[in-house]
Amino acid sequence: MPDSQLDAVIDLLRTSPLDMGGDPHKMRVVFDEMMAAHPVLDDVRTTAAELGGVPAIEVSAGGGEARGAVLYFHGGGYALGSAAASVNLAADVARRSEATVHTVDYRLAPENPFPAAVDDALAAYRGLLDHGVPAAEIAVSGESAGGGLALALLVAIREAGLPRPAAAAVLSPWVDLTQSGRSHETRAALDPALTRQALSARAGDYLAGADPRSPLASPLFADLRGLPPLLVQAGTYEVLLDDAVRLAAKAAGDDVEVTLHTFPGAPHVFQGFATVLDEGAAALDEVGAFLRAHLDRAGRTDRTDGADRVTASR
Amino acid sequence: MPDSQLDAVIDLLRTSPLDMGGDPHKMRVVFDEMMAAHPVLDDVRTTAAELGGVPAIEVSAGGGEARGAVLYFHGGGYALGSAAASVNLAADVARRSEATVHTVDYRLAPENPFPAAVDDALAAYRGLLDHGVPAAEIAVSGESAGGGLALALLVAIREAGLPRPAAAAVLSPWVDLTQSGRSHETRAALDPALTRQALSARAGDYLAGADPRSPLASPLFADLRGLPPLLVQAGTYEVLLDDAVRLAAKAAGDDVEVTLHTFPGAPHVFQGFATVLDEGAAALDEVGAFLRAHLDRAGRTDRTDGADRVTASR
Repeated sequence: MPDSQLDAVIDLLRTSPLDMGGDPHKMRVVFDEMMAAHPVLDDVRTTAAELGGVPAIEVSAGGGEARGAVLYFHGGGYALGSAAASVNLAADVARRSEATVHTVDYRLAPENPFPAAVDDALAAYRGLLDHGVPAAEIAVSGESAGGGLALALLVAIREAGLPRPAAAAVLSPWVDLTQSGRSHETRAALDPALTRQALSARAGDYLAGADPRSPLASPLFADLRGLPPLLVQAGTYEVLLDDAVRLAAKAAGDDVEVTLHTFPGAPHVFQGFATVLDEGAAALDEVGAFLRAHLDRAGRTDRTDGADRVTASR
Repeated sequence: MPDSQLDAVIDLLRTSPLDMGGDPHKMRVVFDEMMAAHPVLDDVRTTAAELGGVPAIEVSAGGGEARGAVLYFHGGGYALGSAAASVNLAADVARRSEATVHTVDYRLAPENPFPAAVDDALAAYRGLLDHGVPAAEIAVSGESAGGGLALALLVAIREAGLPRPAAAAVLSPWVDLTQSGRSHETRAALDPALTRQALSARAGDYLAGADPRSPLASPLFADLRGLPPLLVQAGTYEVLLDDAVRLAAKAAGDDVEVTLHTFPGAPHVFQGFATVLDEGAAALDEVGAFLRAHLDRAGRTDRTDGADRVTASR
């Protein structure tokens, strides 16, 4: 049976002027205009801020007292996008998680290649800790390249010996910069947004000669042991489907608590269409419930056992 | 950090007299005694019944009006176990899903090899339909071999052209009777309950010469297109971890809505220890919420659009 909501979103993406593999300077304008086309709801409050020297926007929505902090990383192939253009999705996460979302303006390629984005992500996390936010009250999140960056951050946090955050929720994460997933073939004709060629162009800019299998560039190839609970969502009509599936398999094999949820017929980052797509709203509801549960658990554990227990692995 | 709850459960399993690869006639007694060791709670009501000519036990728990029916299949390698011995787990599912659970006494190997169990499962499903329960108000569930049987049933339902149920939740499902998962090696020393040898013995009895890659014996090798939403849970300390992970990957590739949730350090069917294991209780809560959501959705859709919409595949 045809699904008119999904069909409409897929048509919109197919006719979009955005070419993820195009000239990044031109495409930044297109990307930001697309994101700005969605009105920001009245309950959203934003404040320009800085975390560990990295510009960020603090986003809250829905009123009520925030129960924790979410460090959010926007998508755009490490070359496009901005904290400002991500406010809508960040606000959706804030409203549903009842947390304050900090969406980070990490440096972009080609001007600032790998590992600049990871360095900025880690600096922002240190910034939150330095502001006195306990690790157990922080979650990380992101979409597409930002989902990959969120995972790279978790690995970098562990390598730096810092306390780990409570959880991570990643939407259609790009975690394999070698583009070796089978879905690059099986989903090529179905994906209305991304192609292997476009991603390879973006990977080339970002890596600037670095090994595409570097664990902090492609966290699919990282040792994931000790990472906090992960929620991974993907549509089945995207060439990055196997990035999500293989990430979940790798995390499970590395004894991480992981939840993978795939949505039939949904395209890349379909959560961005939550206002017109039931699957998108349901996926964001799941993200919110997941983050709330882990940030709540952290709070409860803090009160009873002290913060150390939460930051220890498992 | 050691987890004393998980350690206690794993010790219990390591010292258990149950040998899944042992003589099935002797092990049936051990299996049923183990299951009977857990007291059944006061709120549980059971009724011996029959569905499509197959004996079953109707289980309800927690009071309140049931919102739907769950067809449940116990584990035991297709050779051990019984509906009676599964009442505790069935009651946990009933209480949390707010549905009536029908746990099915499908025929066991070696006396009744494949496809007897699948035939019985399909007959029981037809029996529910014949009793006037709409497909959209039925979910299926099962643990271990019963999880594999639940999936085989979904494939058989599709092949028979019957309307599909609302959802399926499977716990540590055994879906590959060739034992080809990598976790048979990587988890061999960690799994306190199962071994490849034991499963191969059970597979031999059940298959009795049939192809172990037969889609209705090993649904990992089935075409899963058109299946309803699936929830798949597994512990990471089990040789069947990769059965769960590969099932989720296959389902995602076949455009099925699938949620995979892995629990670090948890053994095979850890949900059976929910009274003494937080992970088990959390996993059963997730099963209950998942089944409720899909049975509720079915009910709502029934009232507005008619039952056909729910049973159509997207």
